[in-house]
Amino acid sequence: MHSPPLTLGILGGGQLARMTAQAAQRLGVRVAILDAAPGSPAAQVTPLEFVGRWQDAGAVRRFAAACDVVTLENEFIDAEVLAALEAEGKPVHPGAAAVARIQDKLVQKQVLARAQLAVAPFAPVAAAADALACGREFGYPFLLKARRDAYDGNGNRTVRAPEEVGPAMEALGYPARALYAERHVPFRAELATLVARGRDGDTRSYPLVESRQERHICKWVLAPARVDGRIRALAGELARAAAETVGAVGIVGVELFLGPEDAVLINELAPRPHNTGHYSIEACATSQFENHVRAVLGWPLGDPDLIVPAAAMVNLLGRREGPARLDDLPAALGRGRAKLHLYGKAESRVGRKLGHVTVVGDDADACLREALAVDAALTL
Amino acid sequence: MHSPPLTLGILGGGQLARMTAQAAQRLGVRVAILDAAPGSPAAQVTPLEFVGRWQDAGAVRRFAAACDVVTLENEFIDAEVLAALEAEGKPVHPGAAAVARIQDKLVQKQVLARAQLAVAPFAPVAAAADALACGREFGYPFLLKARRDAYDGNGNRTVRAPEEVGPAMEALGYPARALYAERHVPFRAELATLVARGRDGDTRSYPLVESRQERHICKWVLAPARVDGRIRALAGELARAAAETVGAVGIVGVELFLGPEDAVLINELAPRPHNTGHYSIEACATSQFENHVRAVLGWPLGDPDLIVPAAAMVNLLGRREGPARLDDLPAALGRGRAKLHLYGKAESRVGRKLGHVTVVGDDADACLREALAVDAALTL
Repeated sequence: MHSPPLTLGILGGGQLARMTAQAAQRLGVRVAILDAAPGSPAAQVTPLEFVGRWQDAGAVRRFAAACDVVTLENEFIDAEVLAALEAEGKPVHPGAAAVARIQDKLVQKQVLARAQLAVAPFAPVAAAADALACGREFGYPFLLKARRDAYDGNGNRTVRAPEEVGPAMEALGYPARALYAERHVPFRAELATLVARGRDGDTRSYPLVESRQERHICKWVLAPARVDGRIRALAGELARAAAETVGAVGIVGVELFLGPEDAVLINELAPRPHNTGHYSIEACATSQFENHVRAVLGWPLGDPDLIVPAAAMVNLLGRREGPARLDDLPAALGRGRAKLHLYGKAESRVGRKLGHVTVVGDDADACLREALAVDAALTL
Repeated sequence: MHSPPLTLGILGGGQLARMTAQAAQRLGVRVAILDAAPGSPAAQVTPLEFVGRWQDAGAVRRFAAACDVVTLENEFIDAEVLAALEAEGKPVHPGAAAVARIQDKLVQKQVLARAQLAVAPFAPVAAAADALACGREFGYPFLLKARRDAYDGNGNRTVRAPEEVGPAMEALGYPARALYAERHVPFRAELATLVARGRDGDTRSYPLVESRQERHICKWVLAPARVDGRIRALAGELARAAAETVGAVGIVGVELFLGPEDAVLINELAPRPHNTGHYSIEACATSQFENHVRAVLGWPLGDPDLIVPAAAMVNLLGRREGPARLDDLPAALGRGRAKLHLYGKAESRVGRKLGHVTVVGDDADACLREALAVDAALTL
């Protein structure tokens, strides 16, 4: 590390970049943001704003020139853009190779399966005939998924019968968009965890949490998960092995299914801080954002353990279209111990993540009730 | 409150403004900074930087025009500058009247004494004869203090004998600088607390903490203070009454002496977040910075209670002159659960506050040991 202040560049300017930026700044690190839109959530918290698309090589190069290390807030940025930066000698973490193993979800599943890590059965779908073959093999319902650029369920379709294959493929953007199929897992719970992995390969595992999705969007997270020690250990080991297998540096978000007979399967990886880890800002000795920063800068990782018995995080999702309304905010703030996080998004949309609220305490259920009450009091 | 995002303006761009800015941003509030120097600690965390002195009415007006509400990070800004903004209809909190009751420390003591709140005996010093009279009345040693613009002990002198009066007055800048005298309190401990006071007069009291000064600069803070319930109640009541007496909106930092026979005296007030309250970022349900923001915006105050059994905060003070060195940072970060805060100051100076470190846990002494170990590992 050199003595003048470091500048960390983040590709993308959404809420994950915003919270990563604030963690970096607390460590005395300056932050530069590249986003296609001016005034992005992250650009509101730093003077070093670059406006441009990651597809614009010139914009990326100008941005990177201002940064000592480059990281990213989503896995949609093509790994080749990262590889080009690496070729010019710029440290990029997670690196192009790790992102390439994750950003195409079919490749991700293949990489995990090759390492004998538990995932639901899956298969490539190059044509309708492939999907119909999956229906026969996996049974109905099964899932059709976009291989890339999917988030909050917008790249998933449940196929309940052979005649739904065509419409589902079309709805997902086939043939322009490449697809794959997955067996449906009748899960008892959705679990998640985070692994921080340093440049030196050192890892730290966050607590296992429960998450609840509504309409394919994460609605709430409870920490720690209400499962027994065996499941906890299994999930922790699976997540650590997955992070090592993809070779990512930084936070790896790991979504898991708790399936029949207490089987634990990896649902999906993300090479970055993850929505299911927001609770760590208040509830852990080192937040996921701080450990992401430490990892990508090559610094030692911090303790990820809970500093409180329990925590609940509820996403504040838009319920309307139009300018975000903050009128209810003061009233919602009057409700006890909840910690509110708003992302500075000017426009609301139904289901858009506009903020989140975290409550820490002795009892996870009580925390969740309190956080949900704040959510109910707001109509952003 | 109106629906477009609010902008909070902060007069001053040091670490208190920086941490206040980050708390405001978490609530979705934008932050503008006015500081005489470009690239101040707070200007590193927002794109809305205004460079200018608070003595420059035009600069203040341009800054205020960009803000919905104006607050401040120190009490050196002349109350008349705040009064001018108020006269133009700009909400300023704390307001000119409250700041005027605090920024002149002689006036502050007079206001507190008139309200029958416990302070050490004091007297104005307009000439050397007044100081000598104080020596006779208070006994030696006694304290000579600058009435304004003093911080970290730079406006205090201990006078041990009559012949020290002249040199002490000169060292403090007399006659250009107005002075007053205070009886020396042989305190057993220095205590501190914070009161958050809303625009509606609602107050919330933070835990009582112990602080340790070295060479008149706060070195560490322990929360909660290791004193009995009677002292705790006395201090809490004194602090709340003081905040109400000065009529400040926002955080009021209250430094206290625990004197002989368990007497509790007010040492000094500050109409803003205070160094002794930095521990609240990690250790309290609502940090002092968030409650300052809530208060000045007219929002309900948050719960100030500890969410952990104990916390220790150690200031990271410069030990050398020259560019701040961050070389030791990675090694220091390897030390357990400490939460490091660096303020982005490019230049180190002996005694300059460059950052702080907070450790939370079950045992206050263990927290303090851990935080001091991080401090010892750094030579910023």
